[in-house]
Amino acid sequence: MDTKEIKIIAFDADDTLWQNEVFFREAEDKFAELMAPYMGKEQSINVLFSNEMKHLHLYGYGIKGFMLSMVETAMDISKGTISAEKIYEILEIGRRMMNKPVELLDDVESIFNQLNGKYRIILATKGDLIDQERKLYKSGLEKHFHHVEVMSEKKEEDYRKLIRHLDIEPHEFLMVGNSMKSDIIPVLNIGGKAIHIPHEITWQHELVEDGQEVKASYHQLDRLSDILPVLR
Amino acid sequence: MDTKEIKIIAFDADDTLWQNEVFFREAEDKFAELMAPYMGKEQSINVLFSNEMKHLHLYGYGIKGFMLSMVETAMDISKGTISAEKIYEILEIGRRMMNKPVELLDDVESIFNQLNGKYRIILATKGDLIDQERKLYKSGLEKHFHHVEVMSEKKEEDYRKLIRHLDIEPHEFLMVGNSMKSDIIPVLNIGGKAIHIPHEITWQHELVEDGQEVKASYHQLDRLSDILPVLR
Repeated sequence: MDTKEIKIIAFDADDTLWQNEVFFREAEDKFAELMAPYMGKEQSINVLFSNEMKHLHLYGYGIKGFMLSMVETAMDISKGTISAEKIYEILEIGRRMMNKPVELLDDVESIFNQLNGKYRIILATKGDLIDQERKLYKSGLEKHFHHVEVMSEKKEEDYRKLIRHLDIEPHEFLMVGNSMKSDIIPVLNIGGKAIHIPHEITWQHELVEDGQEVKASYHQLDRLSDILPVLR
Repeated sequence: MDTKEIKIIAFDADDTLWQNEVFFREAEDKFAELMAPYMGKEQSINVLFSNEMKHLHLYGYGIKGFMLSMVETAMDISKGTISAEKIYEILEIGRRMMNKPVELLDDVESIFNQLNGKYRIILATKGDLIDQERKLYKSGLEKHFHHVEVMSEKKEEDYRKLIRHLDIEPHEFLMVGNSMKSDIIPVLNIGGKAIHIPHEITWQHELVEDGQEVKASYHQLDRLSDILPVLR
C-alpha cells in the first residue's frame, strides 16, 4: 500500500471505533429469554434474524428496525399469545440499547490526533441516522472529522458516490473497518485502499457473501492503534 | 430578497417536493379504526401523538418510529388486550407507507431544469435516512441535486453546519420549504434566505413553537412553480 497517495482516511464506526454488535447480541439473548416459554434460544434468534432479513430493504440497519422485527417475531413465535408486558419489555430492550454509553475500542482520540494534519479524517458509517449521530455525539469524537457520512448501504456504488463527493481519486482513499463485506471488499473493488481490523463479534449478515472476492491486497491488523506504524 | 447573492438553493422534500403528511394522516385514521373498540378516534390519535413526542429524542423522525409508537399506543389503549391480528395490521400500515409511490407536488423536473445552471440545487430533508433515500430514488429527481443532506433535525445549528459544509456564506443560501418552524425561521435567524410554500396539511409538531419569531423578511408563495418568477 502506497501510503503517500492517501489523502482521506475514512473510518467505519460500529465495531471499529466503538462497541456495537455486542449490544445487539445481548438484546437477542434478552429477547430469547422472553421467548423461552415458546421456543428454544437458538431457534428464537434464528426466527428473529429471518424477519430482520425479510424487512431489511424497507427498514434498513439500526435499532428501530431491530425493535420492529422483535415485536413481529414475538407475535410469530407465541402465535399471537404473547403478553402485553413482554411487548413493552421488547420495546424497552431497544430503548435501552439507544441509551447505552459509547465504549471506544482503543485510544481513538490519541490515534486521531496523530493522524490529523497529515490526513483528512472522515467517518463513513452504515446505519440509522439518529442512532449513528447519537453515538458520534456521545463518543466526543465529532471534532476530529472533516466529514461524516451516514450511509444506508456500503456497496461499491455507495463508495463511488462518497469518493466523488470528497473530490478525490479512489487510490487516494483509505477505508479502515471491521467488515470485510462492507468496509474492505467494495473499496478494493473500486480501486481504493483498505485496512481490515477484525472485531471479535460479527453479525451474520456482515459475513462475506458468496461470490464476493478479494481482488487486491489490504492490511489486516489486530487493533486500531496498529494503523499508526503503517501510516507513518 | 437580493436573488443575485444566492449560490445554493436547498429544497425541503416532504410536503415541499412530494406528498408526505397526508400518508401519515391516512395511517393515523387506519390506526384509530383499529382502536375504535377501545377509544374514540380523536383521543386515540392524541395518545399516539403523545407517545411519538415522548420518544422523538430517541427514535427521531420517520416511519419506523411512528410504527413503534403505534404498537406501544395500541398496548396502552387496549390495556394490553389487543389481538395479534391488530398488531400485525399496525406493522402492515407502516410498511404500506414505505411502499407508497412518490407523488410530486408540481412539475418539479421542469422547475429544476430552469434553475439548474443558474444555481446549485441541493436537497435538505429531515427524517429517517432510508425513508428519505427511498423517496428520493422513487422521485427520479436525484440527478438534479449537487448534494443531498438528510438531517436528523433542522435547527439553527444544523443549518450552520450544512452551510459551512457547502462552503458558502449564509446570505448565499436560500431554503425553500413548507415548514415555518423547520425550513424558514431557523434559516432566517442565521442570516439565510427563505421561501415559504405552505402545504395544506402540517403535522402539529411542525407548527411554530412558542418563542419562535420571524426576524427577517421572506417570500410566501402558493406553489412551487411560483419560485421561478422570483428567482429569474
